[in-house]
Amino acid sequence: MAAAYKLTYFNVTGLGEPVRLILSYGNIDFEDIRITFDDNWPSIKPTLPIPYGQLPIFEHAGKIAHQSLAICRYAAKQAKLVGSNDWEDLEIDAAADTINDFRLKFVDYYYEKDPKVKEPRKATLYKEMLPFYIEKFEKQIEKNNGYFAIGKLTWADLYFVGLLEILNFILGKDLTDGAPGLRGINEKVRAIPQIKAYLDKRPPTIR
Amino acid sequence: MAAAYKLTYFNVTGLGEPVRLILSYGNIDFEDIRITFDDNWPSIKPTLPIPYGQLPIFEHAGKIAHQSLAICRYAAKQAKLVGSNDWEDLEIDAAADTINDFRLKFVDYYYEKDPKVKEPRKATLYKEMLPFYIEKFEKQIEKNNGYFAIGKLTWADLYFVGLLEILNFILGKDLTDGAPGLRGINEKVRAIPQIKAYLDKRPPTIR
Repeated sequence: MAAAYKLTYFNVTGLGEPVRLILSYGNIDFEDIRITFDDNWPSIKPTLPIPYGQLPIFEHAGKIAHQSLAICRYAAKQAKLVGSNDWEDLEIDAAADTINDFRLKFVDYYYEKDPKVKEPRKATLYKEMLPFYIEKFEKQIEKNNGYFAIGKLTWADLYFVGLLEILNFILGKDLTDGAPGLRGINEKVRAIPQIKAYLDKRPPTIR
Repeated sequence: MAAAYKLTYFNVTGLGEPVRLILSYGNIDFEDIRITFDDNWPSIKPTLPIPYGQLPIFEHAGKIAHQSLAICRYAAKQAKLVGSNDWEDLEIDAAADTINDFRLKFVDYYYEKDPKVKEPRKATLYKEMLPFYIEKFEKQIEKNNGYFAIGKLTWADLYFVGLLEILNFILGKDLTDGAPGLRGINEKVRAIPQIKAYLDKRPPTIR
C-alpha cells in the first residue's frame, strides 16, 4: 500500500531533513522522493505541484502543502513532539523560528554571488552571528534541561538536528564544537532508535 | 486590573501590528507598550527581557515569549482564528510563512546600506518579486473564497493586513492596486467591528 504521506525534496539534507527526522521519530510511513543532481530539475519543476516554486512539498490524501516549518509543525503533531498547551507550543514555535533566523544568516552568505558582498557577510557570520546565537542557544538549552524548549524533547530539537548538517557544510566546521548544549541535543536526537534507523538507511548526500 | 497580556514593540506598525490586530479581533485585553523615537532605545533595551535582542516580546502570567509569527499563532488560538484540524492549520501556517517570505524581500532591500547592493535589490523587488508573489497570492485567494487559506477568515489574513502598512511604506505605493484579492482581504479585515475600533483608537505612527 502506498504511504499516506509523500515528501518531495532534493537529495540533500537541508530543509527536507527536519521533516524526515520528525516523521521517522513518529514511525510515520512516508514516500521520501529525492530529486538528484542527475535529474534535470528545470524540466521536472513544471511537472510538480509546487505552490511557490520551492521545495519541499508535502502531499497527503490528495492535498499538497509547502513551507518546511509549517510541514514540520504538522508532522510534529502527528509524532507527538509538540507541547501540552498553547503557551508551550508558543515556546517551541519561537525556538524553531529562531533556529530558522540563524539558518537564514548562513543562506544570505552562502548563496550570494558577488564576492564584494559575500566576503563581508562571511565575516559577519563568523565573527558576530555565530557567537551571538550560540551563546544564547547555550543559555536557553541550559534553562530547558538540555533541550530547546519546555524542558524536554520537542520538534524544535529535531528541526535543529535536521539543519545541522547543511549548516556545518556551509561553515566548513562543526558549529557544536565548544557548544555542549547544542552538541548534546545532536547526540541525544541521533541516538533515538527510530532516528538512528532512518539515518542508517538514508541515501548518501553530498551535503 | 492589569491586562493578562503585554505586548512590547516600537510605535510603528511592522511586526507588532499583526499581533495587535489578532488580539483586538478576539477582544483580548492587552497592554500595548510602544517604544517611541523620543525614547532612548539603546538605554531601554538592556532593561527589557528580550531573549534574542529583538522586539516584539509578549508577556503573560510571568512568562516572556518572542518571535512575532509564534506570538501571532498563540494569539490566534485564543481569538479562534485557527483551523479546525491539523491540516487546516498547516495551510494557514504555510500562508503566513509565505507572507513572511514576501516581507523579507522588502526588508532585504530596505535595510541595505550599500547603494551598490541596494539598487539591484530594489529592481529585483519591483520587477520580479512583486509580480511573482502577487500573481500567486491572487490565485490562492481566488481558490480560498477571498481569503488566504481554508476558504474563510484566519490569522493569515490578519497577518497580511497587519504588515501591509509597512510594506506599502517601503514600496512607496499601495501593493494591493490591481490585486483585487489582496485588496478585498484588507477591506474585509478593516471593516470587522473589533478591528475597526482598534484602528480608530491606535496612536498615530510614522509608518
